Amino acid sequence: MHGGDIYRNSIRTDFSVNINPLGMPSEVQWVLTEAVLHANKYPDIYHERLVEETANLFNAPNENIVYGNGASEIIMAICHSISPKKVLLLAPCFSGYETCVKGACQDCSISYHTLSEDNDFEIHHDILEHIQVEKADLMFLTNPNNPNGRLISKSLLDEIVISCEKAGTVLVVDECFLALTGKDMENSLAYDITKHKSLIVLRAYTKTFAIPGVRIGYCICADKLMASSLKNHLPEWNLSIFAQMAGAECLKHKEYLLDSAKLIEKERSYLTQGLANLGAKVFSSDANYILFRCADSELDKKVLKHSILIRECSDYNGLEKGFYRVAVKSHEDNEKLLSALEDLLND
Amino acid sequence: MHGGDIYRNSIRTDFSVNINPLGMPSEVQWVLTEAVLHANKYPDIYHERLVEETANLFNAPNENIVYGNGASEIIMAICHSISPKKVLLLAPCFSGYETCVKGACQDCSISYHTLSEDNDFEIHHDILEHIQVEKADLMFLTNPNNPNGRLISKSLLDEIVISCEKAGTVLVVDECFLALTGKDMENSLAYDITKHKSLIVLRAYTKTFAIPGVRIGYCICADKLMASSLKNHLPEWNLSIFAQMAGAECLKHKEYLLDSAKLIEKERSYLTQGLANLGAKVFSSDANYILFRCADSELDKKVLKHSILIRECSDYNGLEKGFYRVAVKSHEDNEKLLSALEDLLND
Repeated sequence: MHGGDIYRNSIRTDFSVNINPLGMPSEVQWVLTEAVLHANKYPDIYHERLVEETANLFNAPNENIVYGNGASEIIMAICHSISPKKVLLLAPCFSGYETCVKGACQDCSISYHTLSEDNDFEIHHDILEHIQVEKADLMFLTNPNNPNGRLISKSLLDEIVISCEKAGTVLVVDECFLALTGKDMENSLAYDITKHKSLIVLRAYTKTFAIPGVRIGYCICADKLMASSLKNHLPEWNLSIFAQMAGAECLKHKEYLLDSAKLIEKERSYLTQGLANLGAKVFSSDANYILFRCADSELDKKVLKHSILIRECSDYNGLEKGFYRVAVKSHEDNEKLLSALEDLLND
Repeated sequence: MHGGDIYRNSIRTDFSVNINPLGMPSEVQWVLTEAVLHANKYPDIYHERLVEETANLFNAPNENIVYGNGASEIIMAICHSISPKKVLLLAPCFSGYETCVKGACQDCSISYHTLSEDNDFEIHHDILEHIQVEKADLMFLTNPNNPNGRLISKSLLDEIVISCEKAGTVLVVDECFLALTGKDMENSLAYDITKHKSLIVLRAYTKTFAIPGVRIGYCICADKLMASSLKNHLPEWNLSIFAQMAGAECLKHKEYLLDSAKLIEKERSYLTQGLANLGAKVFSSDANYILFRCADSELDKKVLKHSILIRECSDYNGLEKGFYRVAVKSHEDNEKLLSALEDLLND
C-alpha cells in the first residue's frame, strides 16, 4: 500500500502524498516543457552539471555524489551494493526500505527499533544501545521520520552516527522531507559529510519541489568508495533529460524553499489544531505531514467519498487501524479536509 | 565509452547513436508536453495501462511484462535477479551487458563467443555447441546484433533458445533495434513468448521512437516467476510520468514504424554503397546502423572537426582500431557524412 494512488481511486484532493503545497516552481515547469525538445537525445550519462552543482552546494567532492531515478532507486542500489545480512529499521518508518530489503537482499533479517506512541513516536537515546546490540550491516533513518514527521535532535543524530560507526553499521539518513521543515542547515548531516565514514545521506527533489512525476533523487556518501560501489549497481543513463534539466533548475530556488517552510509551519499549526478540535489524537510533527489517531477505523474510506485521499497507516510496522497521515496542503485544501472530517466525525 | 556523448563534444550531427531517423512522432512530443502538467503527481506505481496494452500487443499475460527506466534498468535487474556465476556474451556485442555484469555480479566469469570478421560477423550454428560447453547461467544476444546490425535467422534463433533451455542458461534476447529492421513479426521471439521457459525478450522505445531522453523499456518474460523476481530488484515508481504517457502514445504508432523501416532500408543501401565507394570495408546490416572498417584509425577524431560524431569501435570486444559504426540517418545527413568522409579519405 502506498500514498498517491490516484490511478485506482477517484480523487479531487490528495492528502496521502507529502509534496510541497506551493506546487512546482513555474520556472521548473518551463524547463520541463523545454526538455521535451531534447527528449530525442540521450541524457548526459554522467549528469556532470547536476553532480557539480550538488557538490558545490554541500561542499563535498564530486565523487561522493550519486544521482538516481528518484531516491527509491538509490535505496535499491544501497541494498544491492551492501547486500546486508542484518538490517535495523525503525517502527514505524517509511515502508520503502523494507520493500527494497525484502526484494533485493537474500538471507537478510530485519530488526525493528520500536517507537512508542506514549513517547509521541520520538526517537530516544535507547536507540544507541540497540545499535550496539544489533550490530546490523545497514540501518535506515528518516529525518524527520515518516509517518509522524518528528525531527531527530542534531545532538542525538550525531551520537547515532558515532554509534553506527562503532557497530560497523552503514547508516542511511533519508532527508527527503528535511528542506520543508525550514531547519535544513542545522539538522542535516549532508553539509559536513566528509567528517564521517559509513554514512549516506539521501535527498530528493520529489517532495521538496513537488515533482514526483519526474523521478530524481541523490545521495551524498561519506566514503567515495561507497559512492563508486553504488554507481556499479545503477543502470547507465538512469536520469532522464527531464530529471537532469529540472534538477539543475531546482537547485537555484532557495527563496521558494524558505517560503514553502513558512507556509507549511503556519498550515501545520492550523491543521493540527483543527484535527485536535475534532477529537483526534495528533502527534507532534516538524514536517509537511501529520500523523493522527482517531476511533473511526474506516475514516479513509469514508473521506474517499468526498474525493479526498488520506493515508491509512495500518500497514506501517508498529501502527494499527485508526492511524492516519495527512499532508499539510494549501489553506483552502486544509479547510476542505477539516470540513469533510467534521461532517464524518459528527455523523 | 559510449555513443551519443554530445555533452563533452561539439556536435552538429550525431551518427554515434542509432535512433529512428524519422525522429520523435509529433503526437509523442505533444503528449510529453502535456505530461509536464502531470509532473506534480506520482506516476502510476504499477503502470497498469502500459502493461495491459503491451500484454495485448504480444498476446502475453500481464504478469509476464516488466517495465523499466530504459532497457538498461532491465538489464541491471536481470543481473541482480539471476546473480549469475557464468555469463556468455558475443564478441563483439553491446558493451552494456558486460558493464552491468561486472558492476552487479560478484564472482562472475564472462565467456565470449567470438564472431569472425571473415564471416561478416554473422552468428553461426557453432554457437549451439558453445552454449552446451559453457553451460552459463545467463546469455545475452542482441537481434539484430550491435555494432554490425546483422539479424540472426529465425531458425537458428529457435535452436539457440532450445539449446539454452537444455544447458540451463537463461537467454536474454535484446530486440531493441528489431522494429526498425521492418522484420519484427517474423524475427521476434516476443510474440510467442509463453511457448518458452527461460527466455527474456527485451524491447525499448528509445531507438524505435527516437526518445532516448525519456528512458523507457520493457521485457517480456517466458516465466512469470522470473518477471516477479525482476520486479523485486526494481525500485518503486521506476517509470516517470513522461515515460508512462509517451509509452502509451508510442504503442499506437504502427504506421510510423513501417515508414521508418522503409526509409532506413533505402538509406542503408545508399550509405553502404557510399562507404564502399570510399574504400571502406562495409559489413552487412539489416538494422539502422552500419559497421565499417577503414585504414584510417583516426577517422572519428578527424570527422569530429566537421562537428560529426561517429562511433569508434575499438572498445568492443573482438574489434580493434579502424572499426566504426554509423547510424542510418536522413538522406540529407547521410550525404553530409559521406561528403565529409570523402574530403578526409581523399586528403
